Amino acid sequence: MEHIQWDPGKPLRLLDQRRLPWEQVYVACSTHREVASAIKNMVVRGAPAIGAVAAVGMALAAAEFAREEREGAGGPEGEGRALMDVLEEAGRCLKASRPTAVNLAWAVDRMLARAARAREEGEGDTLRLLQEEARAVAAEDLAANRRIGRHGLTLLPAGARILTYCNAGALATAGYGTALGVIRAGHEAGRVRRVYACETRPYLQGARLTAYELCREKIPVTLITDNSAGYIMFNKMIDIVLLGADRITRQGFVANKIGTYTLAVLAREHKIPFFVAAPLSTFDLKAADGRDIPIEEREPREVTRLAGKAIACEEAEVFHPAFDITPPSLITAIITERGIVRDPGEEGILALFAEGRKSCS
Amino acid sequence: MEHIQWDPGKPLRLLDQRRLPWEQVYVACSTHREVASAIKNMVVRGAPAIGAVAAVGMALAAAEFAREEREGAGGPEGEGRALMDVLEEAGRCLKASRPTAVNLAWAVDRMLARAARAREEGEGDTLRLLQEEARAVAAEDLAANRRIGRHGLTLLPAGARILTYCNAGALATAGYGTALGVIRAGHEAGRVRRVYACETRPYLQGARLTAYELCREKIPVTLITDNSAGYIMFNKMIDIVLLGADRITRQGFVANKIGTYTLAVLAREHKIPFFVAAPLSTFDLKAADGRDIPIEEREPREVTRLAGKAIACEEAEVFHPAFDITPPSLITAIITERGIVRDPGEEGILALFAEGRKSCS
Repeated sequence: MEHIQWDPGKPLRLLDQRRLPWEQVYVACSTHREVASAIKNMVVRGAPAIGAVAAVGMALAAAEFAREEREGAGGPEGEGRALMDVLEEAGRCLKASRPTAVNLAWAVDRMLARAARAREEGEGDTLRLLQEEARAVAAEDLAANRRIGRHGLTLLPAGARILTYCNAGALATAGYGTALGVIRAGHEAGRVRRVYACETRPYLQGARLTAYELCREKIPVTLITDNSAGYIMFNKMIDIVLLGADRITRQGFVANKIGTYTLAVLAREHKIPFFVAAPLSTFDLKAADGRDIPIEEREPREVTRLAGKAIACEEAEVFHPAFDITPPSLITAIITERGIVRDPGEEGILALFAEGRKSCS
Repeated sequence: MEHIQWDPGKPLRLLDQRRLPWEQVYVACSTHREVASAIKNMVVRGAPAIGAVAAVGMALAAAEFAREEREGAGGPEGEGRALMDVLEEAGRCLKASRPTAVNLAWAVDRMLARAARAREEGEGDTLRLLQEEARAVAAEDLAANRRIGRHGLTLLPAGARILTYCNAGALATAGYGTALGVIRAGHEAGRVRRVYACETRPYLQGARLTAYELCREKIPVTLITDNSAGYIMFNKMIDIVLLGADRITRQGFVANKIGTYTLAVLAREHKIPFFVAAPLSTFDLKAADGRDIPIEEREPREVTRLAGKAIACEEAEVFHPAFDITPPSLITAIITERGIVRDPGEEGILALFAEGRKSCS
């Protein structure tokens, strides 16, 4: 099951993750606005996945422009300029759909840079080049996840009992997964005894998506409520915590699904290693510490309603931040496609990127 | 609204807490077995409330016995003996309904002791004496909660922003509440700025019951998901944590709703005082540390379903402990009707009970 389906020239088809695990329904997006809306409404979620999807959104914007050009009266001279305007506008629209995961902005900026280079260097057929770039974003993410899996494997003890949170799986990426990529690689190598998946209120990505992915792969999984994590750590039922990220600053502060910080505090209390798995596209080197990261607040009804039904007293105010920030002091290591950063901090993270500039491994 | 309604000689009427805040429906119990079933199925929950209700269950058992005697052929000579057998059997049935909260066993044992004393001292009309005792259990709990409120008030900073968990309110007791009793007293005294109520998965006692009680009293309340607690502590949005208990050992280990331990670890990390409010009937002096407390595991479907609807991948295993244990090292103080035990430990707790034996305050 590919959850992001796209061939250049066709609409983007997204598996509607809001309806998993019960129904496999696809939502079609023909325009960048429809893509932005699908991201905002969580048809698709997960930092690397929304990056890959936003890249397609930019390619769709270029196609929209080309279509209008064919139908309209745009002269060849103004074309390059106007296309860039259209792309920049589309990029703003896509970036506004969700603020915290940086992969979205990263993918949009990469597409804009590709268009600018095409224009500067007179490569011609910008649409085709952007379509190729969007496919490259997804292909590279998939490859990065497989490398994350291989690196992460080295951190797993034999018979590992792993606590994970939210969904950092195939569904959260272009495929394979970051944290679940490590778990997949570990399972193949016979090193995973059991995964504990926190349900992850309010959107239940753990209960719906992570449990579903792991069941499909026949990896032993136990679902727990988020508030049982302390209990299972206290009772020595897990060996490591392993989860994904939505944005990582150059100092190693990690924005991830609300509740991640709580798990990190608990892990340190119980001397349990706390690992974050994420591709380089999740790093925001411009951001220093947690204060540089915008935290999305979502609708109260995501907390007070479930499947359209009231589950809470709806007169009460609701505070519903969707992400939190975990400081590097609580993180044992960050696993990337280029290797592992232990005791993450500015030095280690910048070294990782410097290494990339020397040799693209 | 009285949620436990009972007049001797009539059935017990319990407000069905499973249907709050949407519907106010009462469940009638005419026998001790119906009471046990209502406790097991969470028509009524909350440690002191199920204690008060179990006491009524014992009075109903005595009434059942009297009814059978009238209808049957029991001679007066064997009566005392047979009644004790019936009560002991009823007590076992009630105690088996939920294992963790000790108030239930405490109330049953108190009723058994009352019946035994009546028999030994030849007081006659044991049924009436047990009915009076059951009313006394509830009346004393209500009075204890008001005293807990007055003692707890002294611990509240001006403009207190309080995090609470599950429901330790009027609905969890014979009335007024333990933790919410302190909040009620604090609100009356103008010391409460805002209460943050964790929703408390999977049963959502916070979202449904605590938010409801506080809204009715016009106490400002903000509902959050359980996994947002770390975020709001990190962001200095609360001053104290205040919640109830299901069983407290003589060393000060506190069994309470699953997730309490996580909040205690978070509170210490953020140097936020962590207060437990509970009546003396919640103490189990026979238990030393957390290992002496049975932890109830409940049905997986409480996690995977909500209002009859699947909310999770149901192929996954589920681990669903309903309570956890918080060690005294994480507890700033325990608030009882007889006063406050700071830095709780065996000495302070036993002193509290010794004081009670000297003078019943």
